[in-house]
Amino acid sequence: MTDLPPVAVEAYLNWCKNAVEHFLESLFEKEQGTAYGTLAESMRYSLLAGGKRIRPVLAMAALESLGADPLVYIPLLAPLELIHTYSLIHDDLPAMDDDSLRRGKPTNHVIYGDATAILAGDALLTYAFTLLSDPDYDKLVSFETRVKVIRELSIGAGINGMVGGQQMDIASEGKALDLPSLEFLHRHKTGALIRSSLRIGAFLGKASSQEFDRLDRYGQAVGIAFQIADDLLDVEGDAALLGKAAQKDQDRHKNTYPGLMGVEKAREMARMKLDEALEAIAFFGDRAGHLRALASYIIERRN
Amino acid sequence: MTDLPPVAVEAYLNWCKNAVEHFLESLFEKEQGTAYGTLAESMRYSLLAGGKRIRPVLAMAALESLGADPLVYIPLLAPLELIHTYSLIHDDLPAMDDDSLRRGKPTNHVIYGDATAILAGDALLTYAFTLLSDPDYDKLVSFETRVKVIRELSIGAGINGMVGGQQMDIASEGKALDLPSLEFLHRHKTGALIRSSLRIGAFLGKASSQEFDRLDRYGQAVGIAFQIADDLLDVEGDAALLGKAAQKDQDRHKNTYPGLMGVEKAREMARMKLDEALEAIAFFGDRAGHLRALASYIIERRN
Repeated sequence: MTDLPPVAVEAYLNWCKNAVEHFLESLFEKEQGTAYGTLAESMRYSLLAGGKRIRPVLAMAALESLGADPLVYIPLLAPLELIHTYSLIHDDLPAMDDDSLRRGKPTNHVIYGDATAILAGDALLTYAFTLLSDPDYDKLVSFETRVKVIRELSIGAGINGMVGGQQMDIASEGKALDLPSLEFLHRHKTGALIRSSLRIGAFLGKASSQEFDRLDRYGQAVGIAFQIADDLLDVEGDAALLGKAAQKDQDRHKNTYPGLMGVEKAREMARMKLDEALEAIAFFGDRAGHLRALASYIIERRN
Repeated sequence: MTDLPPVAVEAYLNWCKNAVEHFLESLFEKEQGTAYGTLAESMRYSLLAGGKRIRPVLAMAALESLGADPLVYIPLLAPLELIHTYSLIHDDLPAMDDDSLRRGKPTNHVIYGDATAILAGDALLTYAFTLLSDPDYDKLVSFETRVKVIRELSIGAGINGMVGGQQMDIASEGKALDLPSLEFLHRHKTGALIRSSLRIGAFLGKASSQEFDRLDRYGQAVGIAFQIADDLLDVEGDAALLGKAAQKDQDRHKNTYPGLMGVEKAREMARMKLDEALEAIAFFGDRAGHLRALASYIIERRN
């Protein structure tokens, strides 16, 4: 490590988040002066609107567990955040969830209009792959690993991952799902990109097949736990802390874990997923300290 | 060539188009039976709705000019068509150009709704990179070349290419542009992805730096010529042949070449671009027969 990460989870999260944001701030600066400068401005608006940066942070912790320096890989982890941001912009559109507030700020289309918001999402998604193929990182990572990371990201974000999950979410609004269907939905909508974050960290950190498998299992459990925690926050959360309206899911007849099984059972299930995640990475011993802390943080967070 | 391509340009176009469509038809078949099957169906609807497939065809002709077999590279050229298709779906949305007819058929959102149309575009764009990183082609193309192709496609399609051009197009509706601004707009909106098609063909065909430069210059000239021809068709075209309404640009106060300089001057300019394109590839001699025929076809086409 060029800089030693702090031990306490909130401090660790901030340390990682700052490093990621420092890199994100450098993006789309030169485009701001062009004839399509509004597009660059709108991309930066959403990209720098805050957020926990949990996907790159999880990948950084995975790299640490493999003894690699997470800081040098940030430009290749930022694409996870670009993809996450584009998905929020498109999700918030009037034609989708029609949200006007996100992280306490007006959503992209409220400020820039629907057309620019659609294009900003498209451009952020596309730029994820520009970064992953940037010759600046030719010496850092082999071409073979780059191709694997590109494949992983495109599958986690695509029809058999996140976008497929969003389609299921739209199609199942107002219909009561059973537990296996709800899990299937969330494994795609939220779980897939979180799982990919761990797998990308594993690829970049040159994980052995056993290490890869453990990080992958951790990612699957944490992906579901993250969504259950999100559902619980929507029921019990404080709108001021969330930076968006609470109880939206219920108003919109969305399928959620607490809606299906009640708050207590949902909380129990999140704890089960936490145990699964911790068990998967026990193998790494001390090197997985931050992965452990992040898993606990994810199910206990307040926003 | 495993199969000898025909000499006449229309027959050649059909031969290439059939080969590309045969591959496109194999995509998103297994996803049709899933909980997000509607998304797969909507992606296939637009992907298989016809079109000239001019981007992969140009790349195929570039491969031929380098003495390579274009047929084996089709899975790595299909991403050009996935990107083009996604851009049409998003362009046609009510929040963008609000078109209900394309190639004689209802547009994606008319059939599947705006939300699914947005996601279908996102998923097609994402899948372009899944294909380019598919291990099935590990033996066909080196990882280094794959990374170069991915970079080329993401730049041609992204903020400094196609999407940037679409933003300029939106921003300049109703404003009168001068010729340099109009050229700048079209070099991004239409030209960038056409140019990338040639450059991708050149990367895959292992072009020397001189060959690469010639194909790149051809791509730049043909990209602008294609847009001028498109503008001319909108003024003079037959709606039945076009499969969409004619004279839309004028109704919408879009900036076009004939609008700016009149039909005759625009036609003259297209011919100038054709000459530039032909001059760039003179160097290849007989091997560039199809590239030559395609350039002429592009400025003289009726739909």
